[in-house]
Amino acid sequence: MSMIRVEEALDIILRRIPSKGVEKVSITEALGRVLSEDIVSRRDNPPMDNSAMDGYALIAADIRSATPEAPVRLEVVEDVAAGYVAQGAALKPGQAVRIMTGAPIPRGADAVIMQEDTERNGKFVLVKDKAEVNENIREAGEDVREGELVIPRGVTLNPAHIGMMGVVGRSQVFVSQRPRVAVLSTGDEIKDLDENPTGPCIFNSNGYMLQAQIRSAGGVPCYLGIARDNEEDLMEKFNWALECDLVVSSGGVSVGDFDLVKASLDKIGQEMLFWKVAMKPGKPLAFGKIGEIPIFGLPGNPVSSFVSFEQFVRPSIRKMMGCTDLRHKTVRARLTRTVKKKAGRQHFLSSMVSWNNGEFTVTPESEQGSGVLKSVVRANSLMIFPLDATELREGEQVAVQLLEECVVA
Amino acid sequence: MSMIRVEEALDIILRRIPSKGVEKVSITEALGRVLSEDIVSRRDNPPMDNSAMDGYALIAADIRSATPEAPVRLEVVEDVAAGYVAQGAALKPGQAVRIMTGAPIPRGADAVIMQEDTERNGKFVLVKDKAEVNENIREAGEDVREGELVIPRGVTLNPAHIGMMGVVGRSQVFVSQRPRVAVLSTGDEIKDLDENPTGPCIFNSNGYMLQAQIRSAGGVPCYLGIARDNEEDLMEKFNWALECDLVVSSGGVSVGDFDLVKASLDKIGQEMLFWKVAMKPGKPLAFGKIGEIPIFGLPGNPVSSFVSFEQFVRPSIRKMMGCTDLRHKTVRARLTRTVKKKAGRQHFLSSMVSWNNGEFTVTPESEQGSGVLKSVVRANSLMIFPLDATELREGEQVAVQLLEECVVA
Repeated sequence: MSMIRVEEALDIILRRIPSKGVEKVSITEALGRVLSEDIVSRRDNPPMDNSAMDGYALIAADIRSATPEAPVRLEVVEDVAAGYVAQGAALKPGQAVRIMTGAPIPRGADAVIMQEDTERNGKFVLVKDKAEVNENIREAGEDVREGELVIPRGVTLNPAHIGMMGVVGRSQVFVSQRPRVAVLSTGDEIKDLDENPTGPCIFNSNGYMLQAQIRSAGGVPCYLGIARDNEEDLMEKFNWALECDLVVSSGGVSVGDFDLVKASLDKIGQEMLFWKVAMKPGKPLAFGKIGEIPIFGLPGNPVSSFVSFEQFVRPSIRKMMGCTDLRHKTVRARLTRTVKKKAGRQHFLSSMVSWNNGEFTVTPESEQGSGVLKSVVRANSLMIFPLDATELREGEQVAVQLLEECVVA
Repeated sequence: MSMIRVEEALDIILRRIPSKGVEKVSITEALGRVLSEDIVSRRDNPPMDNSAMDGYALIAADIRSATPEAPVRLEVVEDVAAGYVAQGAALKPGQAVRIMTGAPIPRGADAVIMQEDTERNGKFVLVKDKAEVNENIREAGEDVREGELVIPRGVTLNPAHIGMMGVVGRSQVFVSQRPRVAVLSTGDEIKDLDENPTGPCIFNSNGYMLQAQIRSAGGVPCYLGIARDNEEDLMEKFNWALECDLVVSSGGVSVGDFDLVKASLDKIGQEMLFWKVAMKPGKPLAFGKIGEIPIFGLPGNPVSSFVSFEQFVRPSIRKMMGCTDLRHKTVRARLTRTVKKKAGRQHFLSSMVSWNNGEFTVTPESEQGSGVLKSVVRANSLMIFPLDATELREGEQVAVQLLEECVVA
């Protein structure tokens, strides 16, 4: 196995990850999906000039002299409810139409006077203030113009985007397909949660954590359970896995035990790279393609599996989904205690980032063992301790990857 | 309608919001849910002392003198594969057992020597270095002890939590029920997306945006379409809505047009408060309970509806779900341009927060009209312009609410 840097490994991986195609979904199902078309408005919104106030539509010239002391009297020729259009002929001088917020401006009118500046008296209204032409009129297309690009492709859709699609009348929209990701664990030493835990078994926690990580990244997990340490079982499960878009297997990649996994992959006809990545946790990593299907072999211990997924598999799933931001956000934070390590591997320290007095601070968990999932459970981030560095001091600014559910305040 | 401050309104609302009960779900369905029990480990993990290395389990005293030049020869009495337990009798002086990482330490052994420090020779192994007692042995319970609290109730479950539940052998877990939230729009002026858009119609964008906001908050939307402006239709739809846990209606709460909605609610037997909240956008707000069901009446225009939901409905849904952090995270950010307003209402400005050179900066969108959903589409945050303030200057530190999908870097 050759030794390779994190960035180099990710680069090789991403170059081999294809994008998925698109699909058309209802906007009620589109939240969190990646938009794969430009959303262009087919209409003006508002669709026509309308009133910004409850009041009276009128001709501004008629009330040029109006004051509270000397109001102008206009004839109310129609009362228009919200959602209805004035039915009468075009407004003539001396006439007004009672109108609600959002109602279309009747033909002939060129201003709206707000209700508070008027006094109704049967068929007539007394107007106590003047109005400029276009006053209190919201123009057609003021919010969105026909032909305007309102949401560009590539964005991850949030509730405001869904609302905007409603505004422009779209009930369905093209988004990238979500990749189906097979999850396969290997090893006679692990048991599944529905098996009788006799003896010194270890549960297949990785299988469930990986499913959740896949969902968080936007993929659809397809859990294949545990392959036993024999070629027949491995071959069968790898063949099932190849019906998905991406395969993640956990365990079976360290020096001592990857032979069987490798032999099985060889039989299927693989093109695999087995690396030592210069990182901790998570040194051993297998990556390759079987036909067109990318496959990852992650280390079996939980923290290594978690970190390797977040560094390599998550960006791959996001690339397949059409995302442009593939990796976790990274911020600079002030380190709250000195940490040391040997040079030669990039460390990812389970850490707690918090936002205090106008800056991020980061505190690495005291236990960082690759079996100690507790440290990740308590963390909201992974602090990056660069490959060649041997000491980072209290008070230094360091790079920190924010995890999915990270609370920044 | 009385005028009321944002904080006061939220306080009155939250005091009337009940918590939902709990339900038991598979850990494959638990991602993002709020845990409603303490997760306590029922076992040690690792379940027994095991090897941290591929190598040989032995008795440390046997190899006290071992060096590369003068190795100690031990008899290999058993080869134990990963996942299996040594079957032989307890180790006697002069004996060793071949062992893989993670395998249980055989009885009688008290240290593991790594493979690299040995040379195998048929039934025998030459050991070229000494070992301390307990060297390369991971103790039972090193990661998690029986009886240890590994995840406290109240947390929102992320992938690491799911992994930890696997570690302790939990396949199901109690979480808070997700509230079902009815969405009802009112108004003859709006059309649904499946209706023929004749004339100057406005689409029911709020109905779809609210569904997405409910999902983002963790609730389950139940969309009831558009109630027409007549008491019969309103009554029927409000009765359907009352089968949910919470009701959100949009439109029909401004001075001009809430009478019909209010009359319908009166008939069902409501206890409603109609407020002018001292905020912009989103001044009119109705809140109350019909029987045990909380009901919100949000303003009809899209930006007001969006902002009112995020300030009042989202915290309510999160309270029902058992969350402890009910509101959006707020950070302090440096304002990039001076903004002005009149005193008397708290403004929420659609804004873009970014993280640059070690600080947050915030730029409010130039258009803030309550009809201009575009501003929210482009924003990742809501900047808070306090009630009594009339000017915030470029360079000042201001409070900014981060929205759900906020990108902080």
